[in-house]
Amino acid sequence: MSTRLPVIRFATELRKTVQQWRRRGQKVALVPTMGGLHDGHLSLIRLAKKHANRVVVSVFVNPTQFAPHEDYDSYPRNEERDWHKLLSVQPDVMYAPEVDEIYPHDFATRVEVAGLTQTLEGISRPHFFAGVTTVVAKLFLQCLPDVAVFGEKDYQQLLVIKRMVKDLAFPITILPGPTVREGDSLAMSSRNAYLDARERSVAPQLYAVLRDVAVDLASGRPVRESLTQGKVRLESAGFRIDYLEVRDSDTLLPIETIEHARARLLAAVYLGKVRLIDNVEVA
Amino acid sequence: MSTRLPVIRFATELRKTVQQWRRRGQKVALVPTMGGLHDGHLSLIRLAKKHANRVVVSVFVNPTQFAPHEDYDSYPRNEERDWHKLLSVQPDVMYAPEVDEIYPHDFATRVEVAGLTQTLEGISRPHFFAGVTTVVAKLFLQCLPDVAVFGEKDYQQLLVIKRMVKDLAFPITILPGPTVREGDSLAMSSRNAYLDARERSVAPQLYAVLRDVAVDLASGRPVRESLTQGKVRLESAGFRIDYLEVRDSDTLLPIETIEHARARLLAAVYLGKVRLIDNVEVA
Repeated sequence: MSTRLPVIRFATELRKTVQQWRRRGQKVALVPTMGGLHDGHLSLIRLAKKHANRVVVSVFVNPTQFAPHEDYDSYPRNEERDWHKLLSVQPDVMYAPEVDEIYPHDFATRVEVAGLTQTLEGISRPHFFAGVTTVVAKLFLQCLPDVAVFGEKDYQQLLVIKRMVKDLAFPITILPGPTVREGDSLAMSSRNAYLDARERSVAPQLYAVLRDVAVDLASGRPVRESLTQGKVRLESAGFRIDYLEVRDSDTLLPIETIEHARARLLAAVYLGKVRLIDNVEVA
Repeated sequence: MSTRLPVIRFATELRKTVQQWRRRGQKVALVPTMGGLHDGHLSLIRLAKKHANRVVVSVFVNPTQFAPHEDYDSYPRNEERDWHKLLSVQPDVMYAPEVDEIYPHDFATRVEVAGLTQTLEGISRPHFFAGVTTVVAKLFLQCLPDVAVFGEKDYQQLLVIKRMVKDLAFPITILPGPTVREGDSLAMSSRNAYLDARERSVAPQLYAVLRDVAVDLASGRPVRESLTQGKVRLESAGFRIDYLEVRDSDTLLPIETIEHARARLLAAVYLGKVRLIDNVEVA
């Protein structure tokens, strides 16, 4: 295993590196992360390597996507651990800018997507998506990759990024990476580290319920009935439900019947103070 | 004079053309316009040619920067006239997309700059700058130029674009083009065409007053006194004043004395229904 993984701190250096690659005709992928790397991230990097000659992994805990009461300060940061974790999949560069390389004191620009962001996560976390689209737009422009990879675990975020890329004509292809799960089917997430032992033992029930509700829906059971039963099961397992919804897979608009649409089942729940999200295709 | 000036309608074709130039090592400039081309625009194109091997002139009347009561529908559009006008300065491409090439029906993204946009023009035209930054971000990403030229006539717009470019790390150098004036010193503007004969004869007084006030300020006369006298002169010439302000040249923040700052004197006035803007350096 190579231990050569350069860490770049400044956009000018990143851009120079990427330009050199491109001059040699190499295709470049960006995998944006907030660190706290787990096997889900590594699978995104492996996917990136299939679609590009060079892979940049950015590690940046983006302050603007956290509301004041959220967990920005306590969000898991351990760059050395992340760097070592990356060695196993060997990207070409770890781009780890300081906060003021992304947001200097006079920063004043915001990139925002309407519509898609005004439901589900956008209701519970009204600051979230504008923070995400702004930082992703900047990372895209600093790196100028050919492709960028985003996990389906954050399904709404994936759609919002695709919308921004299409609307503003970013010359970048967005690749969705399938959700990676623990052995007991809990979707991998940096925030899983916040769960205590009892919560951790309950958490896999989220996916179990999603999967069963998706099967119900696919077999033609009415939407409202399927969701109601899913909610009852989640609550009796000990989750506090933020939302459990079935939506059009592209627009996230509510759907009454799943016959004529590609549908996605999405949930956000709390276990104690920890918020978990997950989603599955209805097919 | 060559009559070869290709008109491109689609971003995919524009991008292909620009990529071919870039592969040959050529530097590319974009001059964004809303058509209604006059000698001011041509001077921007000449400036672009000094800084790049290839020049794209975009002609697009951007609906999102007009408020419902403003002049979007009546804004001067004459593509054939614009095309002929361009022949005299020979850019390489005229990019004239239809509205739905920029804003398809499901378009939902907005690029916005805070601070700088919340004064002067931003007060009178609250829709304006978000429309400008959104369309310019998209034109930048469709064209991917090395440099882009914006006129100092729209001084606040120039600063807002520079802010956006810096904040989001667009790999583009913004070149300011000096204001071009008619023989009688009226700043060239597509909207001058709206002036009737009497208004047209009054209009040059705007620059005359700006220049005199700037001289007063530079000679140390107090800001308030200089502005008050300027306003009295503008009103007695027949203008209705929207604003006449002296501001920091970079931040547009108000300044009390001009000793320690680079200062800019900016005005917006009405002659009948026609709104005119102009600005000068205080030096």
